[in-house]
Amino acid sequence: MGTSKWLKDRVAIVGMGWTPFGEHFQWDYTDLLKLAAADAMADAGIGREEISAAWLGTAFPDAGVYRGRSGMDLAESLALFDVPITRLSNYCATGAEAIRGGINSLLSGESNAVLVAGVEKLRDRAPQESIVKMMVETGHPYYQKGFTAAGTFATYARRHMKEFSLTREDLAMVSVKNHLHGSMNPKAHHRKEITVEQVLSSPMVADPLSVMDSCPTTDGAAVLILVRAEDAHRYKGTPIFFKGMGMSVSTGWDLPFFDDRCNFLSFRATQVAAQRAYQEADIQDPIREIDLAEVHDCFSIVELLTYEDLGFCAQGEARNFLKSGATTRDGEIPVNVSGGLLSCGHPVGATGVRMVCEIVEHLRGQAGPRQISGAKTGLTHNIGGPGAIASVLILGMEANL
Amino acid sequence: MGTSKWLKDRVAIVGMGWTPFGEHFQWDYTDLLKLAAADAMADAGIGREEISAAWLGTAFPDAGVYRGRSGMDLAESLALFDVPITRLSNYCATGAEAIRGGINSLLSGESNAVLVAGVEKLRDRAPQESIVKMMVETGHPYYQKGFTAAGTFATYARRHMKEFSLTREDLAMVSVKNHLHGSMNPKAHHRKEITVEQVLSSPMVADPLSVMDSCPTTDGAAVLILVRAEDAHRYKGTPIFFKGMGMSVSTGWDLPFFDDRCNFLSFRATQVAAQRAYQEADIQDPIREIDLAEVHDCFSIVELLTYEDLGFCAQGEARNFLKSGATTRDGEIPVNVSGGLLSCGHPVGATGVRMVCEIVEHLRGQAGPRQISGAKTGLTHNIGGPGAIASVLILGMEANL
Repeated sequence: MGTSKWLKDRVAIVGMGWTPFGEHFQWDYTDLLKLAAADAMADAGIGREEISAAWLGTAFPDAGVYRGRSGMDLAESLALFDVPITRLSNYCATGAEAIRGGINSLLSGESNAVLVAGVEKLRDRAPQESIVKMMVETGHPYYQKGFTAAGTFATYARRHMKEFSLTREDLAMVSVKNHLHGSMNPKAHHRKEITVEQVLSSPMVADPLSVMDSCPTTDGAAVLILVRAEDAHRYKGTPIFFKGMGMSVSTGWDLPFFDDRCNFLSFRATQVAAQRAYQEADIQDPIREIDLAEVHDCFSIVELLTYEDLGFCAQGEARNFLKSGATTRDGEIPVNVSGGLLSCGHPVGATGVRMVCEIVEHLRGQAGPRQISGAKTGLTHNIGGPGAIASVLILGMEANL
Repeated sequence: MGTSKWLKDRVAIVGMGWTPFGEHFQWDYTDLLKLAAADAMADAGIGREEISAAWLGTAFPDAGVYRGRSGMDLAESLALFDVPITRLSNYCATGAEAIRGGINSLLSGESNAVLVAGVEKLRDRAPQESIVKMMVETGHPYYQKGFTAAGTFATYARRHMKEFSLTREDLAMVSVKNHLHGSMNPKAHHRKEITVEQVLSSPMVADPLSVMDSCPTTDGAAVLILVRAEDAHRYKGTPIFFKGMGMSVSTGWDLPFFDDRCNFLSFRATQVAAQRAYQEADIQDPIREIDLAEVHDCFSIVELLTYEDLGFCAQGEARNFLKSGATTRDGEIPVNVSGGLLSCGHPVGATGVRMVCEIVEHLRGQAGPRQISGAKTGLTHNIGGPGAIASVLILGMEANL
């Protein structure tokens, strides 16, 4: 060890809560935030007066209900006043960014206990409306050609099919695995097992990705309470520690097409973020050292690419790695035992925070029927935009200071 | 001193740049960002490869051109890849939040040199369109009654008129002062002197605030390069140091009307933020210890309220304080010698960063014809939302470590 680290073992998660994910017409944005925050604060045994700052991750206020544009929406929802509350958005890494904001504030000495929230309310408006609006109003050439998220990631799937003989059945197996996992998660949006045949026969979105290769549009919120490691003993329950984090922005809308480092076979953002997180956490061999992972399966292909980008297997080997059963819940490195985005759904700002809640439950040994027994180290991963923005977090048990 | 501080003398500004503010149909969002960043990087003498993280403040991507939703827009504009880039928004405190993100990252040890940008492109679409859209689509009762920014702040002006005999002439004098100052600023949106009569006869927006009591809708960008104090000597020019910062969220859309602490006479958010900033900076007597201030004059009334909330004068005394000439450029504490928002314009995300650029120029003695001679300590202030979110920053000379 020797050298001093930015993050390793210096920040603890002492409270967490997340709402059921789904289509929640009965709850508005504020309700979702209140429910998750109440759970997280009760979990930590912390009062509002102890929270010295907060971060709010909401990616698309304008695609939904115009809430979450500023920290004010958190202040008013939780009656948390007279402290700084920051709103962030960074596509699908929004939740992870909120966590990073809280971490840096604790480590800089600005704050002593922080609340980190991810919230997204997407079902109150037809998503098509906002996509069409963006296409028409941005005037961006790819948007105008209907270059949506599914379209972006479909190009990666096509390229993997060409280079590595990936098949639609391979893709479907990701969704089958994650829906099997999700059937055990009472908070998942979709809680039914599905078959490869169902995936293959579901309507096509962007060839080769069908509806069942794609995560649903979902409402939800997730909240964490963070403190510096030395303060963790003051709060209820078993604290979980950050071991490493990496963030990277590695491309933009134009670049996949004009950057000769982008070959549509991998996400450099994930690779760079993982490298940083592993270095910070002193991880040499992720497969052996990580007990479970929540990765960004917004589309089935993305989970497969992520196995490779995180170094779980070599490039081109993801399909065989999946087929080996290594990433099912009784495998070598269970991936998305929550059900992932495919089954839990993807309230964008909430997802990165929800993943951390899932890992915390397992490390605490409180994950009930879906507990991965003896889990001591977990990883979360997000990738957002056109494969542009990635976050990797590593969580573990009692700090070895 | 004795007690250790979060911020005081620990972070330095080594580079700054801001574009002319105005109606820039010739430059898009990306152009504005490039221009400001190129100036800031040249000012610091820093290369892209030395920047280890960046923050992008844009408050309303959807009110303008759909740029600035994520850090990707900064990455692609500046070809700054493989580092974390975070987008934040917090109404009119957006720029100050971007600065705070960079500060916390440096002080936590995550980064060694950071780029902080504020950008807003508001003239490409009629602003009425986005306000009407918000009114109709949010369904928020105040929005639906046309409860806009001008309407919100007009209620404060009315209350001051009733309680302290404030007149429309007093309000107009704020705008006259700031336009006089702005006439000396080649980067201001409006660069002409105006008269009290012109303000009084300009069209009414929300009684008693007229068009000339209101800041214009403006395009612009501003960028800072920050490093830890001990690294400042590696860069070109005179470093300027952060002495204190306070942020606070103290109310929400509903609360001014239902919170008995809100009497429409002051902004608690500003008071709390100022208290924190003064404490951090060891400021006892702001009038004597601060040499110039850039405060948030989005409407004339807000500058007057801010004199009181920052402790420059007692409650109800702002009009007399203004009339005494204390806040003109040859007064005791010159306020908005840049021309303020009333004259420079208010590209929302850029404003908080632009204010810091202005202070840096004066502290370096490089403000040309509008130099406040011998300035050693400066203050910036923003207030956003319905008086909800405030930031106060204190900047000074060489650290006295």
